[in-house]
Amino acid sequence: MRNLNHETITEAVLARHVDTADPRLKEIMDSLIRHLHDFAREVHLTEDEWFQGIQFLTRCGHITDDRRQEFILLSDVLGLSMLTVAMNNDKPAQCTESTVFGPFHVDGAPHYELGADISNGAHGIPCLVRGTVRGLDGSPIAGASMDVWQSDEDGLYDVQHEDIDHAQARGILHTDEQGRYDFRSILAVPYAIPHDGPVGDLLAASGRHPWRPAHLHFMIEAPGYQTLITHVFRSDDRYLDSDAVFGVRQSLIADWKQQSDGTYLVEYDFVLNPVDGS
Amino acid sequence: MRNLNHETITEAVLARHVDTADPRLKEIMDSLIRHLHDFAREVHLTEDEWFQGIQFLTRCGHITDDRRQEFILLSDVLGLSMLTVAMNNDKPAQCTESTVFGPFHVDGAPHYELGADISNGAHGIPCLVRGTVRGLDGSPIAGASMDVWQSDEDGLYDVQHEDIDHAQARGILHTDEQGRYDFRSILAVPYAIPHDGPVGDLLAASGRHPWRPAHLHFMIEAPGYQTLITHVFRSDDRYLDSDAVFGVRQSLIADWKQQSDGTYLVEYDFVLNPVDGS
Ligand SMILES: [Cu+2]
Ligand SMILES: [Fe+3]
Ligand SMILES: [Fe+3]
Repeated sequence: MRNLNHETITEAVLARHVDTADPRLKEIMDSLIRHLHDFAREVHLTEDEWFQGIQFLTRCGHITDDRRQEFILLSDVLGLSMLTVAMNNDKPAQCTESTVFGPFHVDGAPHYELGADISNGAHGIPCLVRGTVRGLDGSPIAGASMDVWQSDEDGLYDVQHEDIDHAQARGILHTDEQGRYDFRSILAVPYAIPHDGPVGDLLAASGRHPWRPAHLHFMIEAPGYQTLITHVFRSDDRYLDSDAVFGVRQSLIADWKQQSDGTYLVEYDFVLNPVDGS
Repeated sequence: MRNLNHETITEAVLARHVDTADPRLKEIMDSLIRHLHDFAREVHLTEDEWFQGIQFLTRCGHITDDRRQEFILLSDVLGLSMLTVAMNNDKPAQCTESTVFGPFHVDGAPHYELGADISNGAHGIPCLVRGTVRGLDGSPIAGASMDVWQSDEDGLYDVQHEDIDHAQARGILHTDEQGRYDFRSILAVPYAIPHDGPVGDLLAASGRHPWRPAHLHFMIEAPGYQTLITHVFRSDDRYLDSDAVFGVRQSLIADWKQQSDGTYLVEYDFVLNPVDGS
């Protein structure tokens, strides 16, 4: 295997992988290598451009820590995250649709009782969120675990505030016997994804804005049902048709209603797909 | 742009890039997005596999520092580096071929006089290296800058030794009036690329060894000529046909001759391509 040229090298690299123990890994790497090589050939990637790519990935790696995940952000803005979510969550139409996980979930959020205020000091206009969690057959799901997270009125998650070391506007609740949930938090607002790093530079160079329409994140788990990772979006948001991460689904949009006291109310009912569903 | 599925999302992402100011960036990103999406669809990438990919890239980023470049290593083992080098260095057959740059070059290596010992304390069997640098027309190139780097007898570059903070077995020389060069260093040996990180894990999972055949690295620059980045390989090496980074070219292989005193001698003549060449 000598004197490989830019055409013959692809088969040579694939041939080197014949002893891969896990057939699924081999399938993934073979496809990745083919598409990566095809890409480089198609654009006739120069050595300088190759090195800029190396430096870009290096910057992504170095800005990533336990509070920031630039590679998820990169995947999100390139549409890879939503593509993967869409491809793996083909469900009956009555089920709540899935959307991107995003980079701001934190494991081990605090547990709250129903009705509690999960904002925990986050700034924003008070908002009541309530609804039900049901199965595809309409039966209420009691004790479903609901992990919720959102940004504050400045469009920042708690982990983005250097000076905040505790959970704000995130928490875990459980539905009651009738599958109902309710909690207090703050009004969701549109926010710009972190754009002071390499992904932000890429967006700017591509003439793209970094905004996401206002949303709440939900991860809902219950025995016997597929885990649902989704958002609920605000119907009056200007970015619904240009979400920087391509995550908006019409069925996930709800009306946030202002109350006479100036606070907001949003109601949304979730429908989970049984594990043995489609 | 709502309700994108795993097919429609590709055109939606591309449409978002129409305002890219630099047409070359747009060309590269459009192609990258298409191939990346095609890859994910082709293997039906699961959400768990997607996340393993995110974690893999994160590990590559976190292990990369000013002494280690895991993204270059990844590009090398996937054949992307050699593909890019081959595609951009199509030269007349008489010119010295190019090969991969690798992750171990260091800017600002010490300058040496011709005949000097550049090992500077690196362990290994002494070896004399000499030859000429000429242009495609055969004329000697005087004052060509020759940046040389190699591993020690343990197969490690200076930057891989935690306890070494100065240059060893690397240096910059200049050819004399007749285009000749000579320097003393140590015998090149085969070495394993760093395989205690994510790229090593990938190689192991793919049933691949991490070895590279023994070589010296050269980067040769002279006004009016294309910069030459290449290796000289040892003809008696067992890894010539299975180089972990696919860099071996038959024309770059030379005989390392053992002398009566046990030291080695290798002679290699370089031919540079004029800037206005092919
Ligand atoms: Cu492709
Ligand atoms: Fe979010
Ligand atoms: Fe090397």
